[in-house]
Amino acid sequence: MNNPFATYQTLRKSLREIALLGSVGSVMEWDQRTQMPPKGAEFRAEQLSLIARSVHEQFTADRIGDLLGELEASGLVADPHGDVGTDVRETRRSYDRAIRLPASLVEEMSRTSALAQQAWAEARKKSEYAIFEPWLAKTLDLKRQQAMCYLAGAPAGSDSMYDALLDDFEPHAKTAELRGVFEQLRKDLVELVGRIASSGRTAPVEILQRRFPVAAQEQLARDAARRVGFDFQAGRLDVSLHPFCSGLVPGDTRMTTRYDEHGFADAFFGVLHETGHALYDQGLPKEHWGAPTGSAVSLGIHESQSRMWENLVGRSAAFWKFHLPKARMAFPEALTGVSEDQWLWAINNVRPSLIRVESDEITYNLHILVRFELEQAMLSGQLATKDLPGEWNAKIKQYLGIDVPDDARGCLQDIHWSDGAIGYFPTYTLGNLYAAQFFAKARADMPGLDGQIAAGEFAGLLGWLRENIHRHGKRYSAGELVQRATGEPLSARPLMEHLRAKAARYYGV
Amino acid sequence: MNNPFATYQTLRKSLREIALLGSVGSVMEWDQRTQMPPKGAEFRAEQLSLIARSVHEQFTADRIGDLLGELEASGLVADPHGDVGTDVRETRRSYDRAIRLPASLVEEMSRTSALAQQAWAEARKKSEYAIFEPWLAKTLDLKRQQAMCYLAGAPAGSDSMYDALLDDFEPHAKTAELRGVFEQLRKDLVELVGRIASSGRTAPVEILQRRFPVAAQEQLARDAARRVGFDFQAGRLDVSLHPFCSGLVPGDTRMTTRYDEHGFADAFFGVLHETGHALYDQGLPKEHWGAPTGSAVSLGIHESQSRMWENLVGRSAAFWKFHLPKARMAFPEALTGVSEDQWLWAINNVRPSLIRVESDEITYNLHILVRFELEQAMLSGQLATKDLPGEWNAKIKQYLGIDVPDDARGCLQDIHWSDGAIGYFPTYTLGNLYAAQFFAKARADMPGLDGQIAAGEFAGLLGWLRENIHRHGKRYSAGELVQRATGEPLSARPLMEHLRAKAARYYGV
Repeated sequence: MNNPFATYQTLRKSLREIALLGSVGSVMEWDQRTQMPPKGAEFRAEQLSLIARSVHEQFTADRIGDLLGELEASGLVADPHGDVGTDVRETRRSYDRAIRLPASLVEEMSRTSALAQQAWAEARKKSEYAIFEPWLAKTLDLKRQQAMCYLAGAPAGSDSMYDALLDDFEPHAKTAELRGVFEQLRKDLVELVGRIASSGRTAPVEILQRRFPVAAQEQLARDAARRVGFDFQAGRLDVSLHPFCSGLVPGDTRMTTRYDEHGFADAFFGVLHETGHALYDQGLPKEHWGAPTGSAVSLGIHESQSRMWENLVGRSAAFWKFHLPKARMAFPEALTGVSEDQWLWAINNVRPSLIRVESDEITYNLHILVRFELEQAMLSGQLATKDLPGEWNAKIKQYLGIDVPDDARGCLQDIHWSDGAIGYFPTYTLGNLYAAQFFAKARADMPGLDGQIAAGEFAGLLGWLRENIHRHGKRYSAGELVQRATGEPLSARPLMEHLRAKAARYYGV
Repeated sequence: MNNPFATYQTLRKSLREIALLGSVGSVMEWDQRTQMPPKGAEFRAEQLSLIARSVHEQFTADRIGDLLGELEASGLVADPHGDVGTDVRETRRSYDRAIRLPASLVEEMSRTSALAQQAWAEARKKSEYAIFEPWLAKTLDLKRQQAMCYLAGAPAGSDSMYDALLDDFEPHAKTAELRGVFEQLRKDLVELVGRIASSGRTAPVEILQRRFPVAAQEQLARDAARRVGFDFQAGRLDVSLHPFCSGLVPGDTRMTTRYDEHGFADAFFGVLHETGHALYDQGLPKEHWGAPTGSAVSLGIHESQSRMWENLVGRSAAFWKFHLPKARMAFPEALTGVSEDQWLWAINNVRPSLIRVESDEITYNLHILVRFELEQAMLSGQLATKDLPGEWNAKIKQYLGIDVPDDARGCLQDIHWSDGAIGYFPTYTLGNLYAAQFFAKARADMPGLDGQIAAGEFAGLLGWLRENIHRHGKRYSAGELVQRATGEPLSARPLMEHLRAKAARYYGV
């Protein structure tokens, strides 16, 4: 048997080289979405597929399995949260999942996804669900096959099937546990939204639709991102059709946004959101880059970082104590005669609406829960794909109290299912739950936090996140991390407390 | 034996995949020079070296040699200018050269080049040649070793050594042939420069240093690039410290420039120059991309395309018939009271000066010839590196009639030697020679060409270049291509005719 320390170094070196190649793919994707001229698309697809294939081949090589086997048989993995224990456990999980998928299934999923996305785009454009329905059925069939591969003979119940897919996005999460938390959240939210609706109050949202010159928006957003901690020497902010953040390598984290002269909120809160993702990427331990110990825990935890800066911090009264005077200087025309209270209410507007990505902090989660429930029902076969629109519309009516006028604004609004992302949606609401729970604990740990935020000082909060979340990489699962950082298991309570306080402040309910 | 057609397809597929990976490296380099934040440098170096290593490994694999061997033994290579004949011949040349270099030498050259460039930068800054001299000596020693590897036992005379290195940049070129053409050129140029100096006339160059707002410069340059044929749907124009053009893949060719508000010529002629490179890249046959049949002939031929658009077209009276009215609209302030004759003279200024990259179309070549002569003398050992400054200054005095005040403005001005580029400089003058010879033939073939250019129509000239140069890839060597396209071997005559006409027009000599 080889020296296990040397074996570990060999594994780390391989993982780092694979990650390096993967990061080249990420630069190519960033370039595709922000720089590439239209006619570059054909060869770019080939370049990306070459890199993806090469990453997959290198990661699924027998050699990686052998190294993992040797290390698992050594004493080095005794501490599950130590470097070796973490890297071997998490690499094993990804490795087993990767080798269990036959190349033919991967290819068919990739081909189907391309065609399903085309069908979805056409269906949404025409608001004709029938165009997309057979592709959704086929996608679900492939996802069932994928789940069976992951399960590798373990019992295939409806929860374990969904668990298997969820694991691609939120490793170690269990459907049953999520369901417990989400059902409580749903009851509480439906009740709260009902009370807000009956308050009869409407936020002065027209303020946000006044004229906000784009150059000044960009300046304000950049200043805010820099102030909360984004290092522009180690990253960029650009424009793209759909905003995203890509942590390419340590020292190079790139985020994007889009500007609308008559919509202040999009770019500003969008940049705060992406900055939250970026700060997490910039805060992962550089020395472990490429290995699980240097990687983000899960999509849910990643989203918690973006949602915290966007909503818990960015929409707070404390934040605007410091930033509203800056905004008034940047937009003297739009903000003339706007009081602090009006501004805060405008950016904290709550109102049931049809489109998830345009919805507010409270109703957003109900949009997610509809999807979470429906995708489980479709995956298990309990809900036939042809019955989706009816079920969708019924749930939207039940949870949000509004009627869906057409499928384009109903079950056809999101690209995710056409892309085969089943088990992805819940990570958005998990992000909101984690964010509220972390933020409540950070405030409890740092009584002066609101004052710091009101003074434009964010180092305290960022330090707390670095210490309790970022530096750990994947040493703990999302559930363990929440327990460790907050002393409690995941719960809907902190988020509901935050949202109830907001409802009380702005809607008197 | 395998079916040679199938073998050829296999070779082509491999070459294309290697080129695809190489093109990923080119995107990464473009990004590094135009987009990457400063702290991305560390990992970017690793990403680039990973790709370079992988490209080298794949290209030097035994399998490539085996495929070449099979094809060489087949009848498919009978036509040296056919697809197979070209691809096999040129791939064999590159393959043999690549496998003859031991990895240890490649590594030492790479390490030495990094350190030599540092020493050179410091030496130039302090104008202290002694700091750079030992690194130049070491670089030359390594280049001699490299040449010996390429020669693989063939006689190592001073010409064959230089031939071997030249081949990296100008395949198939022979030092002795170049020397013949260059010596005639030198005599003619020295005589012409002397006559211009004695004319006593000075061009009104201050016109070019007036205020040219950068936004208007960019607009004019983009319009000109588009008009001569650059497809902005298949490329970009950005800003970088040192202008360059990178033909990444068919459909994505990217060029850069830099703007100086008080220097019109830099950006405008720089963009025309890079557009010339870009048009060549955009004109290579897409279906052969990745193989020699789809690749540029040589650096000299590439440079001929940039120099033609920059100088033969871009500084002509015909060109400005169309563009001066546009420039007057773009820069009403700077061009007030400037006549067409003054403008043309300003952009066709000739005056001996110290710095190659700032020199004019006529004296530029003398700067190159100094370097061509000195690097040969140093490579053969005829000139000791410690004697370089004295020889440099003597030649500059002899050819250009001016005194070199310090080494920073003398033999330390260029980065090339510190980077190990020996045999590179002559391709610049080859570019000028080829450009003039091609352009003279194009004009002879198309009597209406000047009229087209004066009307802002460039499709005729571009079509001639596509037909006679671009579409051939590497089917012909540079020498063969010149002979085919112009009916004559390479000669200094067309360039001298062009330059003499210019001297007569602007200096009356």
